[in-house]
Amino acid sequence: MADTTGKSKKRRRADDGAPELPFKKNLKPDSAILETLKSLQKSTIAAASSSSSKPKSLSELALTAACREVTDQSPDSVQSNIEGVILSLARSIIAGNGFSFNVPSRAATNQLYVPELDRIVLKDKNTLRPFANNSSVRKATITTKILSLIHQLCLKNIHVTKRDLFYTDVKLFQDQTQSDAVLDDVSCVLGCTRSSLNVVAAEKGVVVGRLVFSDDGDMIDCTKMGIGGKAIPPNIDRVGDMQSDALFILLVEKDAAYMRLAEDRFYNRFPCIIVTAKGQPDVATRLFLRKMKMELKLPVLALVDSDPYGLKILSVYGCGSKNMSYDSANLTTPDIKWLGVRPSDLDKYKIPEQCRLPMTEQDIKTGKDLLEEDFVKKNPAWVEELTLMVKTKQKAEIQALSSFGFQYLSEVYLPLKLQQQDWI
Amino acid sequence: MADTTGKSKKRRRADDGAPELPFKKNLKPDSAILETLKSLQKSTIAAASSSSSKPKSLSELALTAACREVTDQSPDSVQSNIEGVILSLARSIIAGNGFSFNVPSRAATNQLYVPELDRIVLKDKNTLRPFANNSSVRKATITTKILSLIHQLCLKNIHVTKRDLFYTDVKLFQDQTQSDAVLDDVSCVLGCTRSSLNVVAAEKGVVVGRLVFSDDGDMIDCTKMGIGGKAIPPNIDRVGDMQSDALFILLVEKDAAYMRLAEDRFYNRFPCIIVTAKGQPDVATRLFLRKMKMELKLPVLALVDSDPYGLKILSVYGCGSKNMSYDSANLTTPDIKWLGVRPSDLDKYKIPEQCRLPMTEQDIKTGKDLLEEDFVKKNPAWVEELTLMVKTKQKAEIQALSSFGFQYLSEVYLPLKLQQQDWI
Repeated sequence: MADTTGKSKKRRRADDGAPELPFKKNLKPDSAILETLKSLQKSTIAAASSSSSKPKSLSELALTAACREVTDQSPDSVQSNIEGVILSLARSIIAGNGFSFNVPSRAATNQLYVPELDRIVLKDKNTLRPFANNSSVRKATITTKILSLIHQLCLKNIHVTKRDLFYTDVKLFQDQTQSDAVLDDVSCVLGCTRSSLNVVAAEKGVVVGRLVFSDDGDMIDCTKMGIGGKAIPPNIDRVGDMQSDALFILLVEKDAAYMRLAEDRFYNRFPCIIVTAKGQPDVATRLFLRKMKMELKLPVLALVDSDPYGLKILSVYGCGSKNMSYDSANLTTPDIKWLGVRPSDLDKYKIPEQCRLPMTEQDIKTGKDLLEEDFVKKNPAWVEELTLMVKTKQKAEIQALSSFGFQYLSEVYLPLKLQQQDWI
Repeated sequence: MADTTGKSKKRRRADDGAPELPFKKNLKPDSAILETLKSLQKSTIAAASSSSSKPKSLSELALTAACREVTDQSPDSVQSNIEGVILSLARSIIAGNGFSFNVPSRAATNQLYVPELDRIVLKDKNTLRPFANNSSVRKATITTKILSLIHQLCLKNIHVTKRDLFYTDVKLFQDQTQSDAVLDDVSCVLGCTRSSLNVVAAEKGVVVGRLVFSDDGDMIDCTKMGIGGKAIPPNIDRVGDMQSDALFILLVEKDAAYMRLAEDRFYNRFPCIIVTAKGQPDVATRLFLRKMKMELKLPVLALVDSDPYGLKILSVYGCGSKNMSYDSANLTTPDIKWLGVRPSDLDKYKIPEQCRLPMTEQDIKTGKDLLEEDFVKKNPAWVEELTLMVKTKQKAEIQALSSFGFQYLSEVYLPLKLQQQDWI
């Protein structure tokens, strides 16, 4: 019989007799890679403090089109703001004019990509939403109700989800898309960020690595969060006191890659903060990433799938989504570098054919659409990679690197990428 | 103009002039509710230590049908086990008989609900999977490949996701459902739990409240995890040293309710541990809940939506899912109490009509199917509630309580439920 006691002492070393990992011999000692990272960090700090490359605000630009932007406001200020809106409605009613909301339009035609800011912003078109009109009476009523609910939230300074808001008056809202849409409208009307309204999205992201921060007064050391990491808090206004000795932030698209890096404690070998929203970026993770970048002045390197959605996710972190362009100044993280997995990596790292997937018609269309987007066009290296993807019609997930062994990502691919400064 | 400076000093108290919250006047002082909880905890500890009510293991029962069960095994033991399987295959080949795997069947006909254990178990039917057969050659090859990958994982003692496994040989597996299914087969063949294979699911759950535990050696105090809470680690074998002064565990179906309770620091008012998988229970959260229950001997109270899926989710935590019945002993948490939101609560707590939703045909069918399930039938109070749901054809989410104010859940509903010992 075979030894099934589990006590066998003659274990072979894991790599014994295993084929040499591709490119492993190109790796320099970690100290050399750390020097590379230190210079990346220095140049990021220099860029942040030099006024010429500093991301400008809308007001500093002499744009021909007038644009609008919202700002973070305290609960007190949001509350007073709402009272101001309601008082002016009351005056209008008393003057015999009925009432109407003046709501910034969030339609596609009212969106603008501003290259100087490298993000999407909202232009200044408004729409009237009168109460005394068949087509807008419901929306005007919903708007009033949402304003009253937000007023209550700010008074108590508690946070709720969009779902909670919806349930306060199901009969009026009918379905959640209606209360959600008006919530964005209310942000624009009040000129404050969505997070200022104390309405938060469900938390989804996690963070691990060389970061210490406070969550509602509790100090969190993310090097001591095991493998699971720390759940990113839903309410950014209770996050503060960020400190770090990291050299960069590694933004990871998916949880499988995040888990690999967390288990291997990658951040101990190369000091970094590892963060993921587990797929589509949620508002809480976007706010958290931006706050890290702004307070710690660290470079952000992105590890995403080599498909159009990987790049799209990168762009949402970087330039914002169209739906929330009014809040892009607060939600976006400037200057994210595309580290990998890039279309050119597939051949460069000899990803086996069977781990590449053919792009569907829809994938190819999404890729071509992205090539027309301003935020892609302004980065020639991105255009080159995306063109290659659409041409070869091949995509691959980060996990495709597992074909060389489960730890190839953390032991060879990422260190080599960092050593070669291979980000664009 | 209205005061928009945000400096107004004359804020009214939040509840001033607000209508009295329904049932708030029925609430006793917290000290009385705490006494109730202490007696619940005592009876749970007593039940756990009394041998008569102790959940038995399969081997202690004199069942007519033979059943099988897997156990937790160390990486060393899994590895030796695999070597044993492979050696016997080699002997069979040398003897001129080719080779064949003997795989326990996971079909519905091979499943059994055992009332004494209150969970689903796998019966003992096996299927042969010969290599030299057109219909099973692919599956036999996949099984061999998965065994070899698991052997490698146990040797290195690292954890990967199912997705990582799939990507090691896309050409062979073709799609991930095939490697996933064989992974469950391999658990059954080796007689070890899924987590012993070092293949983990993506993490999804979070925990907050009166719990201290170690995650891969780092001590985590869940009262100091802010509002975000601690992400539940994907690999339960690196979780340990659980300590708690809680009186109960509050298992919450959805993240919105979790967030409300975390922000209100409900666990400081009523010492408890609050845990959620944010919807469908994932393996990591199920393992974590079971470990808490077993080590801390705390009662588990469940807060789920009042719809068939809420009860179904409760049943997966309690009795297991059919797909992984072979591992039910390790994945299920015995004796979970259904606290709310229950169908009878809708009238009892006067949930407004507009916050109740009509059940769809599919909902009603799911509800009726549940009424036929053994794990529902054995609890007459559950049958009564579910019958009421199917009769009234109404469902409601936990969030429906927000119609009485966002904090009604944490300030009135839950305290009153606890005070009245209103769990079944």
